[in-house]
Amino acid sequence: MQNRQIVLAKRPVGMVDESTTSLVVAERPVCGPDEALIKVGLLSVDPTIRTWMNDAPGYLPPIAVGEVIRAGGAGIVVESNTARFAVGDVVVGMTNWQEWAIADDTHRFAVVPRGLGLDLPTVMNVLGTTGLTAYFGLMEVGQFKPGDVVVVSGAAGATGSVAGQIAKANGAGKVVGVAGGPEKCAEVVDVYGFDECLDYREPHLARRIHEACPDGVDVYFDNVGGEILDAVLANIAMHARIIVCGAISQYNAMERPKGIANTSMLIMRRGRMQGFIVFDFASRYAEAQLELAAMVMDGTIKHKEHLVHGLEHAPDALNLLFTGGNHGKTLVVVDESVRLD
Amino acid sequence: MQNRQIVLAKRPVGMVDESTTSLVVAERPVCGPDEALIKVGLLSVDPTIRTWMNDAPGYLPPIAVGEVIRAGGAGIVVESNTARFAVGDVVVGMTNWQEWAIADDTHRFAVVPRGLGLDLPTVMNVLGTTGLTAYFGLMEVGQFKPGDVVVVSGAAGATGSVAGQIAKANGAGKVVGVAGGPEKCAEVVDVYGFDECLDYREPHLARRIHEACPDGVDVYFDNVGGEILDAVLANIAMHARIIVCGAISQYNAMERPKGIANTSMLIMRRGRMQGFIVFDFASRYAEAQLELAAMVMDGTIKHKEHLVHGLEHAPDALNLLFTGGNHGKTLVVVDESVRLD
Repeated sequence: MQNRQIVLAKRPVGMVDESTTSLVVAERPVCGPDEALIKVGLLSVDPTIRTWMNDAPGYLPPIAVGEVIRAGGAGIVVESNTARFAVGDVVVGMTNWQEWAIADDTHRFAVVPRGLGLDLPTVMNVLGTTGLTAYFGLMEVGQFKPGDVVVVSGAAGATGSVAGQIAKANGAGKVVGVAGGPEKCAEVVDVYGFDECLDYREPHLARRIHEACPDGVDVYFDNVGGEILDAVLANIAMHARIIVCGAISQYNAMERPKGIANTSMLIMRRGRMQGFIVFDFASRYAEAQLELAAMVMDGTIKHKEHLVHGLEHAPDALNLLFTGGNHGKTLVVVDESVRLD
Repeated sequence: MQNRQIVLAKRPVGMVDESTTSLVVAERPVCGPDEALIKVGLLSVDPTIRTWMNDAPGYLPPIAVGEVIRAGGAGIVVESNTARFAVGDVVVGMTNWQEWAIADDTHRFAVVPRGLGLDLPTVMNVLGTTGLTAYFGLMEVGQFKPGDVVVVSGAAGATGSVAGQIAKANGAGKVVGVAGGPEKCAEVVDVYGFDECLDYREPHLARRIHEACPDGVDVYFDNVGGEILDAVLANIAMHARIIVCGAISQYNAMERPKGIANTSMLIMRRGRMQGFIVFDFASRYAEAQLELAAMVMDGTIKHKEHLVHGLEHAPDALNLLFTGGNHGKTLVVVDESVRLD
């Protein structure tokens, strides 16, 4: 009747290391009135988790030292005192980094329909916050329209790869990825079907963006921030929209980042930079999920999941996002028996 | 029959100096068919002129070496071969830095109505591009609404002082200026009626913005860019709008600026940064000018004009904008006889 959990032991400086988290063994939670007990199967590994570990203002409060690491995940209902969930339902929500979770009024979970014919890792990737972030970022924040020249950073990543494919499927003029290293760049073009992919580790990125997009960039889906953002800013087209989705280049920064210098291009080109959090669109998830599910089923959206086995490896899985060691959506398998199929 | 002109002799590095421009004596232009000859009276001195001197992409092409310095101004029609202008009309438009200008189809001028009871420097300030920039920036780009907490940089400057007063007159929750030095800060509060003004030359600006705006900044009217922009970004409220109007801190930069580091606050607070050029709103100038004229006449908008006498002093007048040596809208008086009253 145990519940293994990973808690924040010490706020990290730079990358998460062995001193950042501790594996603790708590008692399995008891399912109270109006609650359901969930056996956690999969954890979603997202860069934003790293931001929650800092004692800094964010869109959610920081994770307290001693608290279980906050994270989305999926699980199966094994006990239920609420009509909202039946035993055997597969659910997604904030499971956190642990083996057992409680669904109550503050920890809301949604039931995943079984009939879609998609497996759980795919649902966690394309129909989860990752895919939803790509969808609402591009379509709503970026006000994407057919013909737009689109640049996506973190293009081999879970959000970036989906964002580029949605743009391509909806008639983009051109979709150019930015990724780290020749292997990732090849994947972005060959697997995800971008028109081109630029390696940010090579010099003269701003010049290469200009060569790839000689008439300027209409929409930039920014997962990275920092120097890549600055290089794109130097190349924006009139009325460009920059979707400020993430700043993964900054999350482990140990000193003040170099900063972006080309903001006056927003004046010259009447550009807009806008930040968002996918939760803002929660009331519209279903419409996007329906569209995304169709695009997965007909093969329009290609996707990869990178599975890391064992709750205890969740901290290493998080670091993969920053070292670029992952391919596709990173998920931690806590219990293999939790499945949709 | 001469026309004294100031031409670009050499592209400046840093501040404009005596090697940047030359005073040349050309022949007075001849008024052709469908044209009018304008005797220039006043020149509008705007930070953007400095950006046109660089060989860099902008919203207008760079001024070519050897070309007359591009600038807005006002003059009087002394000869006319077009029904659009009558001799004696006072007109505003791109006069450039010279004594005589031609109004033709590519150099469009607008007639200033005499009946307003405002003098020409006031019209050039509040009803000119300066005031129009403040108006459209705040209301359209910034989507200002009553109750908003507004911060304005360059608050003692021509655009900033008007922007803050429009916000105040339209029910802002609070209007906080940012300016350089105690004298300017006092002027912003005592003359222009801002609630508070912060001296950016003193340390800990971000912390002082937090103290002045503990619930965050809803609208930031940015004339300055750089470190002040970064300090405001650290303090934006949810759904904040940052109006990217100018980046005067960067226009004379001789090395890469430090850059702004707090762009991820746009994600946390779902903020928006948007650049614009007042020309985008040209079709709506009249409605804004009517409103601005009323606010000047009833005393809602206080304004100052800083007159520099003599065409030959135009380069020094431009530098005043960057040294902070001016008070209010800087204008060069080329010919005192050009008046509205």
